[in-house]
Amino acid sequence: MIEVVILGAGNVAFHLFRAFSEAENTRVIQVYNHLEENLNYFKDYTNTTNRISDLKSADFYLLALKDDVIADVAHNLKDLPGIVLHTSGAVSLNALENLSNFGVFYPLQTFSKNKLVDFGEIPVCIEANSAENLEKIKKLTLEITKDVREVNSEQRKALHLAAVFVNNFSNHLYTLGAEICEKNQVDFSILRPLIKETASKIESLAPKDAQTGPAIRNDQKTIEAHLRLLPKKNKDIYSILTQSIQDFHGKKL
Amino acid sequence: MIEVVILGAGNVAFHLFRAFSEAENTRVIQVYNHLEENLNYFKDYTNTTNRISDLKSADFYLLALKDDVIADVAHNLKDLPGIVLHTSGAVSLNALENLSNFGVFYPLQTFSKNKLVDFGEIPVCIEANSAENLEKIKKLTLEITKDVREVNSEQRKALHLAAVFVNNFSNHLYTLGAEICEKNQVDFSILRPLIKETASKIESLAPKDAQTGPAIRNDQKTIEAHLRLLPKKNKDIYSILTQSIQDFHGKKL
Repeated sequence: MIEVVILGAGNVAFHLFRAFSEAENTRVIQVYNHLEENLNYFKDYTNTTNRISDLKSADFYLLALKDDVIADVAHNLKDLPGIVLHTSGAVSLNALENLSNFGVFYPLQTFSKNKLVDFGEIPVCIEANSAENLEKIKKLTLEITKDVREVNSEQRKALHLAAVFVNNFSNHLYTLGAEICEKNQVDFSILRPLIKETASKIESLAPKDAQTGPAIRNDQKTIEAHLRLLPKKNKDIYSILTQSIQDFHGKKL
Repeated sequence: MIEVVILGAGNVAFHLFRAFSEAENTRVIQVYNHLEENLNYFKDYTNTTNRISDLKSADFYLLALKDDVIADVAHNLKDLPGIVLHTSGAVSLNALENLSNFGVFYPLQTFSKNKLVDFGEIPVCIEANSAENLEKIKKLTLEITKDVREVNSEQRKALHLAAVFVNNFSNHLYTLGAEICEKNQVDFSILRPLIKETASKIESLAPKDAQTGPAIRNDQKTIEAHLRLLPKKNKDIYSILTQSIQDFHGKKL
């Protein structure tokens, strides 16, 4: 049995806790958070603590913490056995370099507490301070997903940035679409099949080959009609993305 | 049997042809295009013509044409029986007002020739010049989808605009994500589960409630690190969308 301690109590900690609790060969033996009250959910299932000095011996310590406290907390884990992993897309491997055994376990997915995900489909990017630790981390990761990838710190930071474009920014475009619907008394649900198909298309097509719409057709009449309908702020977003589509695809023509 | 003539041979015409050919109570008796060579695909299945004067008598004429030729082509259909429908999101109902029986049949979906869609899930926005024709159009539409919605021309134009945000612009963000992957020698497939989950989340959450990431957290350190990684042009897109997320969600705090 691989024993895991999770440090953190946010969305990522919650989903990691579920995944490692449900996996056959892993067990979450403790959850740590510096605030006692954040541990309530976990208390029903495992040991919890708000003191670093009470941390148990384990095979892995998973830091699901805010980026700017990772190095500090890691500093206090020096005397523990096991491999310390952070789960951040944006923090370098060497933020943990004062430790003996360390690595990265970065699940490339968006987590909300109120939406369960199937962890088995999630790509996890791993990195380690030694070949031996990389093997151990890979073994741990394969307990909860079939999609394990070795990714270095530079690539991981690029992926984290790409994720902002395809996830955070796309979701905000949905929000702006919902706002347009609301203003015109149309139920947002009407856009759901389109959103679903837009995402589903790129399972079989490269996104550049799936591009449609007035920008790539250079349909100036529609573009101008759309700009007239939009408030100033969204006009700028419309223009800059239309321009970007034309620049990107223009290069190829 | 409801008899349909389709005018046009592009993506929308192709998918409408398939849907109405497969439906139980409808039949596509003819496909028109002004260029003979565009009709090759359809010739194996139905009558085709490149002359307006050869159009057959039918219950419906579906114009799957470029926006700027709809009014002109419709003008030449005056003497035909049946209801003339255009399929555009951006063109008003009254572009067809020289006819006796007319309406709009706007499927809110993105169509590519090389990607089949399940028409039964696609919302179709309908509008007509009379209550009687609206009923007939509704009946026709229910042959191929369960999601029929009465939407007026103004609402339809707003939906067309919202569709540009959630579909064309989101897809372009996927393209930019793919470009970042390529530059860093990471396979784009790693982003697919994230893209899928981003779209799938809004089936149970309003998009504004699904927003995550550095912009909504106001994580200035990550935002600055991301901006440093981006080329000038994409920096502007990153900044304007980050600002828009903060403005939108700031308003609510």
